Amino acid sequence: METKLSYKDNQVIISPDQPFKIIGERINPTRRKKLASSMAAGDFSLVQEDARLQVAAGAHILDVNAGVPGADEPALMRGAMQAVIEVAEVPLCFDSANPDALKAALEHYPGKALINSTTAEEEMMGRILPLAKEYGAAVIGVITDDAGIPATPEDRLATAKKLIDRAADYGVPKEDIIIDALALTVGADHNASRVTLASIALIRRELGVNINLGASNVSFGLPDREYINTAYLALAIANGLTTAITDPTKQEISLTIMACDLLMGQDEYAMRWIRAYRKRNQA
Amino acid sequence: METKLSYKDNQVIISPDQPFKIIGERINPTRRKKLASSMAAGDFSLVQEDARLQVAAGAHILDVNAGVPGADEPALMRGAMQAVIEVAEVPLCFDSANPDALKAALEHYPGKALINSTTAEEEMMGRILPLAKEYGAAVIGVITDDAGIPATPEDRLATAKKLIDRAADYGVPKEDIIIDALALTVGADHNASRVTLASIALIRRELGVNINLGASNVSFGLPDREYINTAYLALAIANGLTTAITDPTKQEISLTIMACDLLMGQDEYAMRWIRAYRKRNQA
Repeated sequence: METKLSYKDNQVIISPDQPFKIIGERINPTRRKKLASSMAAGDFSLVQEDARLQVAAGAHILDVNAGVPGADEPALMRGAMQAVIEVAEVPLCFDSANPDALKAALEHYPGKALINSTTAEEEMMGRILPLAKEYGAAVIGVITDDAGIPATPEDRLATAKKLIDRAADYGVPKEDIIIDALALTVGADHNASRVTLASIALIRRELGVNINLGASNVSFGLPDREYINTAYLALAIANGLTTAITDPTKQEISLTIMACDLLMGQDEYAMRWIRAYRKRNQA
Repeated sequence: METKLSYKDNQVIISPDQPFKIIGERINPTRRKKLASSMAAGDFSLVQEDARLQVAAGAHILDVNAGVPGADEPALMRGAMQAVIEVAEVPLCFDSANPDALKAALEHYPGKALINSTTAEEEMMGRILPLAKEYGAAVIGVITDDAGIPATPEDRLATAKKLIDRAADYGVPKEDIIIDALALTVGADHNASRVTLASIALIRRELGVNINLGASNVSFGLPDREYINTAYLALAIANGLTTAITDPTKQEISLTIMACDLLMGQDEYAMRWIRAYRKRNQA
């Protein structure tokens, strides 16, 4: 199944038959004081720097979060969007639970964006899915619902199904729903990742949709996090993950993803691997 | 399915329901001049050093190769075996195509060893499988046959089946055959790894046997090999790999494998991960 996003003429396709797609996570003021205060002051130069760095490092899509406490989120979201498209020609992923902020960006965005995100809670689907329909956006569907986090792969599949069915009711087609398989921290529950990996395989097999993870939190609280994060990405990709929200400016992340593409037959003659190596060693 | 190996009272179980098992590859004089000349002179101190280092780094089993051109391989294999068991209490994997060398080690080995390896060629199975039966050893079965390397996962499954059937004819049970899924270099053929990964999943699903890879050669000829090797291990583990011949003294290898165990629910409360981190940071 293909989820198509675009910025003007630049189309990005998320699909199991394509190289893996990276959604750059850095444009997010949460826990980044300097970025938060500059954004609140209407200064988007750090936002632009993060946009440039991530695209240079291999991001195919950029997540944009403008949630600075106490600030006017719709105004900041629109400002951040405009700042990013001045320097980066990739599709954007608007990251907010605030429909006004999403609307402020979507109504001026020249392309097909991604919304991050709705859960399968009825009230939230009722707020987010009509926006996706109105502006022709795709949506990340996080498979929690009014009952919380489903414990088993089978329950997560059922929640994903419910979310996709409700999206169809709102006029949003299945290929525009990217299921987020819930990357819970393995330090808190040593079975968390096993359940997520099995959920990815099951949802992919049964529903055929694209699947996303926020792939940096699985290792929270543990030492040597980079080895856990890269192993997790590869394990998840083998199970059917097609996109992840992560930080491609971390070399171990971007190289692991590129290595997975190579090893899964998505890099003809290893040309991309060799080209990227040469580029790194010229700079 | 459980493949049980032992050295005296120390039993090692290779199984999908256990942490991943590392077969240390370093005791091998091929392309290691100093090791080759010292072994040929009957000096096994470097062999013992490699044994100690690999066990300290997490090897569960040690591969022992004594193939020094022009030397008396049976004598060297027995000498290397005796030297290794003086310093390492783990099961051994005797690595030779020479039945006399295998016999020289197996007949004096105090435990259940692994033989590396037979192919599915009739003549080779006729040489190796009777030794496995006689000494109660397990065998790595490499799925090439008289026709060469099978091109598709389906053909590799058929070859694995043939090898397991012939082993049964010789009295070697299925659980004592570990199928080697053929890690060909991805630089020579960009589909090589995709076919191997699909073969692992297919053979594991259809036959239930344990599966091995020699996991260091996939990246041959390419730059930044460590990222390819670690991504390959994780992708293969996700597809059903249960053991690999590799070098655990390379930190990225042992940490990636330990991270995969953690992420697949094989490290309760992440205690092994944390203990290993502490140990590294005390040293």
